[in-house]
Parts: sequence; C-alpha cells; structure tokens
Amino acid sequence: MKKSVGARPFIFPYPVFLVGTYDDEDVPNLMTASWGGICCSEPPCINVSLRKATYSYNNIINRKAFTIAIPSKEQASLADYFGITSGKNNRKFEDTGLTEVRSDLVDAPYAEEFPMVLECKLVEYSDLGLHTIFIAEIVDVKVDEEKISAQGKPDIQKVKPFLFSNPERAYFDIGEEIGKAFSIGRFYKS
Amino acid sequence: MKKSVGARPFIFPYPVFLVGTYDDEDVPNLMTASWGGICCSEPPCINVSLRKATYSYNNIINRKAFTIAIPSKEQASLADYFGITSGKNNRKFEDTGLTEVRSDLVDAPYAEEFPMVLECKLVEYSDLGLHTIFIAEIVDVKVDEEKISAQGKPDIQKVKPFLFSNPERAYFDIGEEIGKAFSIGRFYKS
Repeated sequence: MKKSVGARPFIFPYPVFLVGTYDDEDVPNLMTASWGGICCSEPPCINVSLRKATYSYNNIINRKAFTIAIPSKEQASLADYFGITSGKNNRKFEDTGLTEVRSDLVDAPYAEEFPMVLECKLVEYSDLGLHTIFIAEIVDVKVDEEKISAQGKPDIQKVKPFLFSNPERAYFDIGEEIGKAFSIGRFYKS
Repeated sequence: MKKSVGARPFIFPYPVFLVGTYDDEDVPNLMTASWGGICCSEPPCINVSLRKATYSYNNIINRKAFTIAIPSKEQASLADYFGITSGKNNRKFEDTGLTEVRSDLVDAPYAEEFPMVLECKLVEYSDLGLHTIFIAEIVDVKVDEEKISAQGKPDIQKVKPFLFSNPERAYFDIGEEIGKAFSIGRFYKS
C-alpha cells in the first residue's frame, strides 16, 4: 500500500554537478548542483537548475556558458564545500588550490583536478519558481586520459563518480553492475 | 591531462525513470527514460526528455500529465523491458501483469508494484532536437508504506533504487553512504 510523502523533489539518484562560471571580473567560480541531468541526445544537451540568489546565476546569464565537472568520490568533501560556500564571499579556486583552466570552446572555466568536464553553451532558460532551469548544448566532454575506456568513453570504474540523495541528505558510492541495458529486459518480450 | 571524448551526452549517474501515461483509448503505458532529473524545489518540478517517435510523447501532449516511477534493483529487467518495447505494439501492463492504478491527482496511470511514484502535471515543454524536454510539477510522491523512513521520506535502503550509465550501457547498484551533504565540506572553509 502506498502512502503520500507530499509534493517534494524526491527521486533516486541525483547527480553531483560542479558548475563552473566566470563572474564580471573573470573570477572563476564552482558551485555544486544536483538538480539536473541530460535532456537531449542530438544535439547533446544538459540541464541544471539554480536559484536566482546564487552567484553562478548571473554568471551564466551574462556569459551564456558554463562547465559541468563530475567529481570522483575521493573529492566528495571538496564537492560538498562548493555547495555550502558562495562565490560572493569566497574565491573558491584560490581557497582550495585548484588549477583553473579556461575553456577554449566556451566562456567558462573548469578545474583540471576533476576527472571529467562538460563544456556547455547556454541554449535557453526558464524561471520555474525557486529555481531557474538552464538548458545548454554540450560542445565537448573532456576526460583524464587514463580514465577513458577502450571504447573512447569515460570509464565509470576509473572516474569513480558518486551520487547525491536528497531524502538522506547524503552522498553515496556507486555499486556493482547489475545488468546490461537494452538487453536484460528481453526476457519479458512475448 | 584531459582528452576530448567528443560532444556526447555523458554524465554520471543517470536515473531510471518509468514514465506512466494514458493513450487516446485509456490504455496505460510505461516507458523507461534516463534523460531527466529534478529541476525546481518550489514548486517541486521534474524534467524528462522523450523522442517525438515514442508512444509516450503524444500521450503527454494530450493528457498534460504523467507519472514517474522509481523501480527497485530487483525490477531492473522489468525496467529494461519498458525501454526496449513500444506501446505502439505492446500492451505493457497486460504483458507484464502489472497492476494499473489510475492517479486521482493527475490524468495518468502508475503500477502499484514499483516502490515509489511521482504524480506530475505538465508545466511546459520545449523541442531541443532529437528530444523534447517535458517539465512538470510534482503534485504528490507516493511510496510503499514500509519503505518510508522515520523522517517521512523514501528510504534509499528500502526502495533499493539503481542507476543507469550511458557510457557503459549498463545498470549499477547504489553503494555505501560516503558522507553527509552540507556537512563534509566544512573542512575546506577557511
């Protein structure tokens, strides 16, 4: 029997995105966001939602670009830091000693230390209430060379990503593979 | 050193959503989708992207509503089935013996067997290319009673959700908790 837990933003799992932007004075910033995901295959697009009150919000509006880094589980504390501090009061790259890289494809920075980064150009955005959804085209994905699979893709075992759970307000590791997609469901075909 | 793997829809992790809709003849359908996530806290909103070619696409346009079920890892094969078959040629509830429940809040069905379901009202949609993004307000979240935590939220250990990885084209379990959010990053505060 199902019971209501209310109208709340509950799903499993949520990603941990680090949104990289430049402010008016070219100071690079990183902000953690878990409201987002992929929203189109061709052209490849990603969406991420931010509150208007964030420092990153105006950066994206002004520069029409951002990066999304995927941190590894060893970087969970660092990723959490970027979610509980604001670029209004902190120079987050300086405070953490991260290496700023200026994307040559979009007007946004990323940190060399994270294993994987998406360079994104703003396509459209829409004010939904507390959050504004930003939809951007992924113009490139860059991955640490040793973390790329033989198939030329980011390797989940080497990137070692992790996930967020809003109901638990906690981060979780990714476990074992439980089956191949577009395959294990064939059993049900009649 | 980072290397380009191309402009592709690569992130970690992706959710496994089962999108529940009614067609013109009130036949319930379920379709697996991993392009999506939460996009607003207040009002709570979710986004999911579908190709125009899917059976669910017109169902959502016509009914302006859908449900999103979160399957458990024991249901991974079943979830995969809903992604490799179309409602055009299959009556998926009948074929799998699932129990149809008509939402009393939105004009869409869900299956009683999945541990958690979100009832969603379409707010807006936008054609991005191969996919169209649907943004909907979550009007309620219902969870199997025994899978609700003492805090009144879906319990990740009891719902037992899993995740999709597009680079691996595989499903993965969720692992151990690695830290509390809005907490483990305090170490970096100067």
